[in-house]
Amino acid sequence: MSNIFDQSCLAIVTGTNRGLGKEIVHQLAKRITKPSCIVLISKSPETLKTNSESLRKQFPQHAFCTYACDLGIPSEVTDLISKLSEDLKAKVKQYEAAVLIQNAASLGRVDLTARDLDDMDHLQQYACLNLSSYIALHSMYLKLTSQQANLTKLIINISSLAASMPMPSTTDYCSYKAAREMALRVLDVENPDVRTLNYSPGPLESDMSEELKSKWTKKEATANWDYLTCEESVNRMMGILFENTFESATRIDYFDR
Amino acid sequence: MSNIFDQSCLAIVTGTNRGLGKEIVHQLAKRITKPSCIVLISKSPETLKTNSESLRKQFPQHAFCTYACDLGIPSEVTDLISKLSEDLKAKVKQYEAAVLIQNAASLGRVDLTARDLDDMDHLQQYACLNLSSYIALHSMYLKLTSQQANLTKLIINISSLAASMPMPSTTDYCSYKAAREMALRVLDVENPDVRTLNYSPGPLESDMSEELKSKWTKKEATANWDYLTCEESVNRMMGILFENTFESATRIDYFDR
Repeated sequence: MSNIFDQSCLAIVTGTNRGLGKEIVHQLAKRITKPSCIVLISKSPETLKTNSESLRKQFPQHAFCTYACDLGIPSEVTDLISKLSEDLKAKVKQYEAAVLIQNAASLGRVDLTARDLDDMDHLQQYACLNLSSYIALHSMYLKLTSQQANLTKLIINISSLAASMPMPSTTDYCSYKAAREMALRVLDVENPDVRTLNYSPGPLESDMSEELKSKWTKKEATANWDYLTCEESVNRMMGILFENTFESATRIDYFDR
Repeated sequence: MSNIFDQSCLAIVTGTNRGLGKEIVHQLAKRITKPSCIVLISKSPETLKTNSESLRKQFPQHAFCTYACDLGIPSEVTDLISKLSEDLKAKVKQYEAAVLIQNAASLGRVDLTARDLDDMDHLQQYACLNLSSYIALHSMYLKLTSQQANLTKLIINISSLAASMPMPSTTDYCSYKAAREMALRVLDVENPDVRTLNYSPGPLESDMSEELKSKWTKKEATANWDYLTCEESVNRMMGILFENTFESATRIDYFDR
C-alpha cells in the first residue's frame, strides 16, 4: 500500500499550537514530498498566525491555512464546520490524499476524584472539546471526501493508554479517550475506504504533562514515567504511516513493537 | 458476601418510567425483604406519579420517592443533584445498603452514519443525558455515602454490548456506552469500598428496541435478534446481585454463563 508521504495531501490537524500537534504539522510538512495543503485548527489566533508564518518560510512548497476555534464551545464548532466545508470543497479535488488528525484534547479535572466531579458546566465543555467536536469533524471530513473515489483517506485519533486503563482522578480523561476510540471504530466499520488509526503517543514532555505533574492527585506517579519528546513520539507515528501496514481502527501505542 | 436483598436499602434508580428501569424498581421492591426506600428518577412527572402510586399499593412496606428530571438538560441535573444531596443526607443513615442503578440512556441518532452526525445541539444533549449526568450522579452518591463506613455500597451501570462492539450508525450510542463503562472502572479504582457492575441486559422487548427497529439504518438486523422480556433480563441481573460473587467493575452480559 502506498503511503501518504508520496502523495499530494490535504491534511487537517487540530490542536496545532503547541506540543504534539505542533510537531505533527512540522513533520507532515517535512515528510510530504509533493506540494500540499495543511489546515491548522487551534484556539489562539495569535499563535496560529505566528506558527503558520514560520511554517510558510520553512516549507514554501506547501500551503498552510489556519482556523481559530475553541472546540469546547458548540457554536464555534458549528461555525468552524460550516467554514471548513465551504472553503475545502473545491480544494480537496486538487489532492491525492486527505488526512484528518484529531489531536485537540484536554486533560480534565485530574485534581478531582469521581466523588467531586459534579460541575455540569465543566462536564459539558469537556464533552464538547473532547467528543462532540471530534464527531462533528469526522462528519465534515466524510462529507468532504465521499465524492472522490480515488482519494487516499486517512483519519488518526490521538489517543492514550488511558482509553483502556482506568487510573484514579481521570474519570473525564479516561472516559472520553475510550469514547473517541469507539467513535473511530464505528466510523471504520461504516467506511471501508477510509483507513483509521488510534495512536497512543506515550507520556510526553509537553504542557499537558506539566499540567498533569502539577495537578494530578497521583503526581508522585509521574516521576517514574519514561518521558518522550514530542519529536520522538511523532517520529514513531510517522514511521507507522510510512510502513502503512497497520490494521485499520487498531490502537498502536508508542511502546508497542 | 451478603447481598443487598436481606438489608434495608436506599436504592436510587434512573430512567424508571418504562421498560428495563420500571422492571428494575419492581423487582427491587419485591426482592428486598426489609423496609427500604426506592428513589425513582425519570423525565415525566405524570408517569412518575402513576407508577409510584401503584408501587406504594403493591409494596406498602417500602417508601418510594420520586424526582422528575430531564437528565439531558444541564441545569435540571444540577438542581436534581442538589435536591437529592439535601433530601437523602439524613435518610441514608437509616439504611444498611445504598444502591445506585444508572439505567437512564438514549439510543441516539441510529438513523445516521458518522458522515451525517454533526448537529452540535444533539451531540451536547446526548453527552448530558448519557455521561455528564451519570458522572454527576456518581459524585452525589459518593458524597452521600462516604461518611458511612459500614454501609454496603453498590453502583450498577446499565450498559450494552455496544460498549465494546462497534456497529454501523451507532456512533453516539457505542461511544457513550464505552465511556460509561470506563467512568465506572475509574470510580472502582478510586473506591475499594464500593462494588460496581456493568450489566449488559441483552436485546430487550422495549420502547428502545421498537425505536431501534423503526429508525436504525440496519433495521433488517433486528429481525434475527433473540429478544428478551425486561423481566427475563432483570431476573438475570438480580440473580447476579443475589449470588454477589462478580468481580467489581466487570461487565456481565445477559448471555454470559
